[in-house]
Amino acid sequence: MILISNDDGITSRGIKLLVKLMKELGEVVVVAPDSPQSGMGHAITIGNTLRLEESSIFEDVQSYECSGTPADCVKLAKHFILKDRKPDLVVSGINHGSNTSISVLYSGTMSAALEAAIEGMPAIGFSVCDYSSEADFSHIGEYVTKIAKEVLEKGLPKGVALNVNFPPKRNEEIKGIKVCRQARAKWQEEFDQRVDPNGRRYFWLAGNFVNFDKGEDNDEWAIANNFVSVVPCVYDLTAHHAISHINDEWNL
Amino acid sequence: MILISNDDGITSRGIKLLVKLMKELGEVVVVAPDSPQSGMGHAITIGNTLRLEESSIFEDVQSYECSGTPADCVKLAKHFILKDRKPDLVVSGINHGSNTSISVLYSGTMSAALEAAIEGMPAIGFSVCDYSSEADFSHIGEYVTKIAKEVLEKGLPKGVALNVNFPPKRNEEIKGIKVCRQARAKWQEEFDQRVDPNGRRYFWLAGNFVNFDKGEDNDEWAIANNFVSVVPCVYDLTAHHAISHINDEWNL
Repeated sequence: MILISNDDGITSRGIKLLVKLMKELGEVVVVAPDSPQSGMGHAITIGNTLRLEESSIFEDVQSYECSGTPADCVKLAKHFILKDRKPDLVVSGINHGSNTSISVLYSGTMSAALEAAIEGMPAIGFSVCDYSSEADFSHIGEYVTKIAKEVLEKGLPKGVALNVNFPPKRNEEIKGIKVCRQARAKWQEEFDQRVDPNGRRYFWLAGNFVNFDKGEDNDEWAIANNFVSVVPCVYDLTAHHAISHINDEWNL
Repeated sequence: MILISNDDGITSRGIKLLVKLMKELGEVVVVAPDSPQSGMGHAITIGNTLRLEESSIFEDVQSYECSGTPADCVKLAKHFILKDRKPDLVVSGINHGSNTSISVLYSGTMSAALEAAIEGMPAIGFSVCDYSSEADFSHIGEYVTKIAKEVLEKGLPKGVALNVNFPPKRNEEIKGIKVCRQARAKWQEEFDQRVDPNGRRYFWLAGNFVNFDKGEDNDEWAIANNFVSVVPCVYDLTAHHAISHINDEWNL
């Protein structure tokens, strides 16, 4: 059985395509947010209540919409809906917009996948590097299926989830798949300051993505060069290399 | 100059103590949420507006309260409030409750520190493993100061922020500081299902922390044995060890 979630919400075009593709591979269960949850990172709902309702949005598919975050959806799926049934695969997306590089930290799409990895389930987050709600998905279906099949057949190393990004539809065909590291890049914010009708100041978060990475082994390079990027991700944030450094340098 | 944020909100006792301690080390600027943001992970506000107001809560300290998440606070501090002034140190907390092990992913406290690390600033998140709003902080002040001083003097490796947790106040003195890895543990959720006055079902997220880790080199062991735990953390989520594995195993 394949569990599907996302962060754009249960009515988005991306999850609709993902459900269609995964139905070819096995039984599907959907637990997805009832509203857009982009940029929610690994947030969970702890100070508020959660709603969960059955949905009839997908034909012949057991589906639920949840008022919470993508991580909440996976937790509710595991502990309330599926209980003893363990998914063979958890997929999240297909996100409208890039989750390459540092965006993995802010990504609701990837938080669903990482939450599944914490629970010992093989998991993949899929994103198309095109922010338009009208994004063209016609070039990615075969790759989504291929990668999902590889994970169903071969599993993933313990504690690892995949962050898969697709280049936007271009005039040439996708060149193939690159297994990459997360590019060294960040968002350079510019806050757009405005005044509301009551004379009070408010802000919109805006900004540009800045890529510092000169390498060719990272996800930004792959997308720029029309490859599908696959970044294996961990939820163990320990900087293992820094432990001995701090023990040596510090006077503890 | 030392930038301070947190996730419990600008009125919490933890940030009050942190401001007091950091004022001994230099000029302080506070940008903190105007309401509790626990469990917000690395969420940012992208579909909504942000508010930012000057606050007079701390005497002789330039302070702001923000309607957004801890990561939003650091972004607003860097790009709107401080602009060309780069902090020598960013500290977040002191959190009321543990951020050891897997909780680092859900932690708003640590998202402020990691956001600062992305911006190339040395950063530390501080948490006390006591969830009570009346938590006793009397045993930790000297350690907060010591660790902040070490980072101010020696810096941190590039791309690394510290996750510092303190044991709850016990009958014996803290034994010292351990530089650790993140323990292998997770939350075992139990959703508490209730019915609202209108007859509709809702849920509270609840559950227990389950520690699978048998080692003595992790943060859970340190806290259980009355040490301060210091886990160096990264925002590069790449599972570098898994790249060659996938390239070898998969038929791409």
